[in-house]
Amino acid sequence: MMLINFKNYHESTGKNAIKIAKIAEKVAEELNVNISIAPSLIDLAKVKENVSIPVYAQHADAINYGSYTGQILLENIKEYGIDGIMVNHSERNILIKDIEFIVKKAKALNMKTMVCASTSNISGALAIFNPDYIAIEPPELIGGDISVSVARPEIITESLNIVRRISPETKVLCGAGIKNGLDVKKALELGANGILVASGVVKAKDVEKAIFELANALR
Amino acid sequence: MMLINFKNYHESTGKNAIKIAKIAEKVAEELNVNISIAPSLIDLAKVKENVSIPVYAQHADAINYGSYTGQILLENIKEYGIDGIMVNHSERNILIKDIEFIVKKAKALNMKTMVCASTSNISGALAIFNPDYIAIEPPELIGGDISVSVARPEIITESLNIVRRISPETKVLCGAGIKNGLDVKKALELGANGILVASGVVKAKDVEKAIFELANALR
Amino acid sequence: MMLINFKNYHESTGKNAIKIAKIAEKVAEELNVNISIAPSLIDLAKVKENVSIPVYAQHADAINYGSYTGQILLENIKEYGIDGIMVNHSERNILIKDIEFIVKKAKALNMKTMVCASTSNISGALAIFNPDYIAIEPPELIGGDISVSVARPEIITESLNIVRRISPETKVLCGAGIKNGLDVKKALELGANGILVASGVVKAKDVEKAIFELANALR
Amino acid sequence: MMLINFKNYHESTGKNAIKIAKIAEKVAEELNVNISIAPSLIDLAKVKENVSIPVYAQHADAINYGSYTGQILLENIKEYGIDGIMVNHSERNILIKDIEFIVKKAKALNMKTMVCASTSNISGALAIFNPDYIAIEPPELIGGDISVSVARPEIITESLNIVRRISPETKVLCGAGIKNGLDVKKALELGANGILVASGVVKAKDVEKAIFELANALR
Repeated sequence: MMLINFKNYHESTGKNAIKIAKIAEKVAEELNVNISIAPSLIDLAKVKENVSIPVYAQHADAINYGSYTGQILLENIKEYGIDGIMVNHSERNILIKDIEFIVKKAKALNMKTMVCASTSNISGALAIFNPDYIAIEPPELIGGDISVSVARPEIITESLNIVRRISPETKVLCGAGIKNGLDVKKALELGANGILVASGVVKAKDVEKAIFELANALR
Repeated sequence: MMLINFKNYHESTGKNAIKIAKIAEKVAEELNVNISIAPSLIDLAKVKENVSIPVYAQHADAINYGSYTGQILLENIKEYGIDGIMVNHSERNILIKDIEFIVKKAKALNMKTMVCASTSNISGALAIFNPDYIAIEPPELIGGDISVSVARPEIITESLNIVRRISPETKVLCGAGIKNGLDVKKALELGANGILVASGVVKAKDVEKAIFELANALR
Repeated sequence: MMLINFKNYHESTGKNAIKIAKIAEKVAEELNVNISIAPSLIDLAKVKENVSIPVYAQHADAINYGSYTGQILLENIKEYGIDGIMVNHSERNILIKDIEFIVKKAKALNMKTMVCASTSNISGALAIFNPDYIAIEPPELIGGDISVSVARPEIITESLNIVRRISPETKVLCGAGIKNGLDVKKALELGANGILVASGVVKAKDVEKAIFELANALR
Repeated sequence: MMLINFKNYHESTGKNAIKIAKIAEKVAEELNVNISIAPSLIDLAKVKENVSIPVYAQHADAINYGSYTGQILLENIKEYGIDGIMVNHSERNILIKDIEFIVKKAKALNMKTMVCASTSNISGALAIFNPDYIAIEPPELIGGDISVSVARPEIITESLNIVRRISPETKVLCGAGIKNGLDVKKALELGANGILVASGVVKAKDVEKAIFELANALR
């Protein structure tokens, strides 16, 4: 599993979001690898119309239908057929009670859940909610040139140990600094089930080549 | 001017958002009144595709293109042709420095700006940023049965006085509890330039009738 | 163990904080029960000067020494000999990464740690940080007339099970609605190690009698 | 008027807070200049006991007496005889409705009010609440080596113009990067009524000399 977080980069919002989404879909089909994408909340519905690979939301608020202005409602996301929800990214942390709320509701709505954690103990703590995926991303490595699997392999190993003890069925993704096939291979060797990427892909000179290399290493 | 805030009500999200948007468009054409709508952030792009009346976003974050997950970027909204941006609703307050950031950028992007205020002094403070509209909404009246124009007319009058002293070209809308034509007439008599409505319209038994009555009173 | 949260009630701030602190100290000595108190952050240093029972802070921010205005630094609290720190109360939730930061630093400073949780799964999640105490308080029962041990005994039982599985040495306190000796007895029967109280004590007509009854039931 | 913000520096918390407070008091008496200090919230009551110069709080929350844990109540601060309150520092921004709440209540409690602003338009906006002082501090200059009065004199001039138009009696302080007497002289020439300092004083090798130089330039 490989999730591409589009964030709010110029290269991956608006028309560019659909362009990259289609490239990801093409590579997913060629290599038969699960490539999922997380476009911006504004682009979400439009991107979903244009591709058939899994689409995740980058965030949701802990609300139900009601008098809430400017907030992101899970049921509203679901109505467009969005496949999953990512929460608690280090650029959009939410309270633990809100993580519990969102994961529980997403399951009830039959959506996939990915929860981000910045340390191994936090990944263990969040495993108690049994999300489908936990993505471990030390914030100091996000957007950098060295991947977590190379710079801090013990974080991956410890996270895997704790998560598997608490929620054996939860899969662990490796994020932050993943840039090439070697980073991916190292992550898989450590036991990770996949990767979470962003700038390494969407800001690459040749986006298709970048996705291809990472996805190919995941096979 | 009448802005309908769709919030995250079941009656006005997803397919229902498009339905109400089309009713609003129909009434706007019949009565030749400026009816604008603010669908949820998730519905924004899809609603805009379906109607030609002005569409506003309910919120935006104070960010530029970049490494931001789960946040709302004004340029991303603009790419779908969205006409305006509403910020600082009492259900989604933001910092004053972020209000300044958003209003300034929205103007540069040629988008309309509506800033919400909960008291007359706050409406005066925010007038310094010269938004197109200031909507005055005492939070204790939002969603209630008594309109601000009836319950607290002095807030409207004081807001108008302060806003006009500081930014004469900014128009003042009257929000909170507006439910019928009489509320609208009272608001106009006090000097307001229009109204901001939500549950009074989208949760009405007959939505078209509700919009018609309010819009008709605005003529 | 019984912790009295003084919150920001008129009855338990300023001079009143010292008054109640001394009553708590008197009862603690009479009954030989561990009664700890959490005065407001402003009263903290002054209360500590006046009593010898354990004093906790109601909150701390995830900062180190430095350029931080209006924030609460653990080292600053420690300098006054404060014994412990309570974090993540439902009236002052903080991010999970900040909980980890505070618990880790408080241990290094040799301070006791109490982390609040609103559900049994959250108490399990936070147990991973091995705090000295987890206080389980369903927010809907805080300040009410029915105690959690009577209204929702299963939350106590489930929390105990999860916490003991993840961090056997962490003690579990029972909060929300605890008003009399029977509530305490029920909590102890369920397996709780103590109680967290606030309005039930500090707003009682006879504060000494209220503290005595609860502390006596804890023996 | 000169306000020294102690922030949470090691050099100005705990015992060091009292030490610097006494130095400030000594210089204030020698030069007959109004030197006020803002120690950390934890140190507030203890510092006030030890000096007779005006003491400000670095922050307060928009609450009244009640069920609030870990928050800062103005009445609680006032009970220790604290003279004033500073809010909305760029390291502790609060919502505009909370600024209005705090300024209004502080006036009712007969406390001085200082509101921080990061741009000239924000200083104008906040002038509508008629605080005693507005401190203008561009955040990018805080803690730096170049003072706002030298690097961005137009911000001071514009702020003065706007503030005086909206609230003539409000005094304007100049913050960010003020390090020596020349910075102060330049600020006064531009029309400022005083200065807001922090690291330039509390992290100086010779604190007394640093305070003396700045205070002397204010005469």
